[in-house]
Amino acid sequence: MSQLTRADLELLDAKDPLAPCRDRFTLPDGVIYMDGNSLGALPRSTAARIADLITREWGQDLIKSWNTAEWITYPTRLGDRIATLIGAAPGTVVAADSTSINLYKLAAAALKMQAPRRKIITEPGNFPTDLYILQGLARYMDMELVTVPRDRLLQAVDHDTALVVLTHVHYKTGEMFPMAQVTRAVQDKGALMLWDLSHSAGAVPVDLAGANADLAVGCGYKYLNGGPGAPGFLYVAQHLQDRIEPPLAGWMGHATPFAFTDEYVPAPGIARNLCGTPVIMGLASLEEGLRLFEDLDMGDIRAKSLQMADLFIRLVEEQCAGHGLEIVTPRAAEMRGSQCSLAHEEGYAIMQALIARGVIGDFRAPDILRFGFTPLYLRYQDLWDAVACLKDIMDSRAWDAAAYRTRAAVT
Amino acid sequence: MSQLTRADLELLDAKDPLAPCRDRFTLPDGVIYMDGNSLGALPRSTAARIADLITREWGQDLIKSWNTAEWITYPTRLGDRIATLIGAAPGTVVAADSTSINLYKLAAAALKMQAPRRKIITEPGNFPTDLYILQGLARYMDMELVTVPRDRLLQAVDHDTALVVLTHVHYKTGEMFPMAQVTRAVQDKGALMLWDLSHSAGAVPVDLAGANADLAVGCGYKYLNGGPGAPGFLYVAQHLQDRIEPPLAGWMGHATPFAFTDEYVPAPGIARNLCGTPVIMGLASLEEGLRLFEDLDMGDIRAKSLQMADLFIRLVEEQCAGHGLEIVTPRAAEMRGSQCSLAHEEGYAIMQALIARGVIGDFRAPDILRFGFTPLYLRYQDLWDAVACLKDIMDSRAWDAAAYRTRAAVT
Repeated sequence: MSQLTRADLELLDAKDPLAPCRDRFTLPDGVIYMDGNSLGALPRSTAARIADLITREWGQDLIKSWNTAEWITYPTRLGDRIATLIGAAPGTVVAADSTSINLYKLAAAALKMQAPRRKIITEPGNFPTDLYILQGLARYMDMELVTVPRDRLLQAVDHDTALVVLTHVHYKTGEMFPMAQVTRAVQDKGALMLWDLSHSAGAVPVDLAGANADLAVGCGYKYLNGGPGAPGFLYVAQHLQDRIEPPLAGWMGHATPFAFTDEYVPAPGIARNLCGTPVIMGLASLEEGLRLFEDLDMGDIRAKSLQMADLFIRLVEEQCAGHGLEIVTPRAAEMRGSQCSLAHEEGYAIMQALIARGVIGDFRAPDILRFGFTPLYLRYQDLWDAVACLKDIMDSRAWDAAAYRTRAAVT
Repeated sequence: MSQLTRADLELLDAKDPLAPCRDRFTLPDGVIYMDGNSLGALPRSTAARIADLITREWGQDLIKSWNTAEWITYPTRLGDRIATLIGAAPGTVVAADSTSINLYKLAAAALKMQAPRRKIITEPGNFPTDLYILQGLARYMDMELVTVPRDRLLQAVDHDTALVVLTHVHYKTGEMFPMAQVTRAVQDKGALMLWDLSHSAGAVPVDLAGANADLAVGCGYKYLNGGPGAPGFLYVAQHLQDRIEPPLAGWMGHATPFAFTDEYVPAPGIARNLCGTPVIMGLASLEEGLRLFEDLDMGDIRAKSLQMADLFIRLVEEQCAGHGLEIVTPRAAEMRGSQCSLAHEEGYAIMQALIARGVIGDFRAPDILRFGFTPLYLRYQDLWDAVACLKDIMDSRAWDAAAYRTRAAVT
């Protein structure tokens, strides 16, 4: 097999059915953006939509817009849009609050319905906020939180296990769990399964219904392109919905929020998982991100994503051999999400050098360089250019200078 | 005393030192907006600020903006801005999440630090989401929630009372509690006091430090003009900050969120009360609302608000006598916030007729018409015009027709 050339990749772009999607985004010149797994790029329609929300819906129509602009149904309307991307039925998803808060809501409710079982199982190295939220919950509800490495995790699920919480695609390595198989094994022991889809929704096909999933949460500002800090989402399987006793029993989850009665009565269905007044600007921005997927098929997106990862890995091996870059993401397609992670002991400095040259990935301690593949706006030729830049930095040890810089906070 | 005329009110506008502030807002033509206590009006600067956030900070600078545009410090920076409006020290307030969620965070943490005390006291008819959140919390933490009418409330606080939660200015009647006096009485019994400032912040002078307040929450989209569903805020007195054990222990409240460690370690100070990734668009919009207060004095705002309420009540009495409109808001200045509420059994229909003619107040079941006074953009002459419209509706019984319409959801 001869080495890849830039022309090979340009040819793939020319034949790519998703290539026109790039025009749906506003991207900076001179930048190869491979961090859509952390903050998605800006959809071209967002600025105009938000300008209209501000000047007309808020400025002119004021309080009336809760009804006339249907602000009040935003969380459930966007939930139904997200549902189509994650294999969920209408009426099983709402967009609201942050991923962390949504995880708390569902985990707390699950623990309550699973009493007297009192064990929560997750894996060490799960996305930190998932671990932190569960630690806080365990303290407040007097539960036992157990972290078990993934290769032994299912054996640890027992008759005292109330809940298992896992991130479908690992934020650092990009490794993906077999959702249906894990869900079944957990449920076989009478435990509930809660999936964090933050690095899955909009990135890989997810089939919550097919996996018979119980509960899930996810992020709006990564592959869904909702903008910085956009609201997250949560999913509750139909058969569990009326058993949810909301811990965050706010008025937006009330059966009749505008009756202003003193007694809390949970709304039927998924809406009881709402809490306070939803942040309309964040939801409107998320909607623009979601609209981009309307005419797209997650299978096509997955196909391009996998091919991009294969090519990226091959390019790194061909161009950067001997520089000690270890490929951390699994080679098997069914075991990985939509990113490639490389390990190198000077990973932080190398990533800073890449960013300085316009190749935006990110770094995760202690030694991981992350490169995200977002098939809607990333081109095959970008992979060539990104690896060419990486090769140049490695060959010239251009990262040496950067290595002594103070480490800034990275997100 | 002769009856007021429109000329009297125009004269007051001409002499009003706050009159120029109206130009800081974009208001629709032909509308008298007296619902700023539900959704504040649009500051003139907001659209441009959000456009810049979207196109430059997000679109061009992408992930870097967490540092370069200081997104990461938004919650504490805005907290310090809000602190100046509520008599709080720097470092005691953060802007984040919704009021409901913030109430949950602080109430749960207060209950934990007050163990073995297990009683929460509030009043019936408190803002519904406050009641609902406390009901949910009582169920989850096995606490006793007791509602006591305000005239007997302080007597009910006893050695088993962990926490008292009250809304400083009542959302329906506009009645205001004497904050310092109530706080002292509650603390004398060893309980903690949590104030909901949703109808106070930006509307009446609040002196949390002077009242020796323990805990407070409030709303960003009413008198602070942050836009629909803008983030709320929370306050923790300095001496309690390190005792807070966050129930919603998300990564943004971690001591070193970007170290991505497995163990939760709460940040020192107020920042531990943050949870998930903050919604940047909502915070940026809230900042524009807060900037309007920079060169203003809450004493001036209060003086105009009180005079407006006095004049409004006098106009209603002079112009609408005999129509059965009962003034619910207390007459005594020190006992009221920045609204006037009228009771009438056909209140809903009357408010619909007012809104149809461009006088925007709102209705709260079963019989309350609410009129909010926002001295930054409401003119004295607007009071005349609003009451003239009310008079015409009452005289002609124009609300009769509206009374038979289906009741739509009102917010």
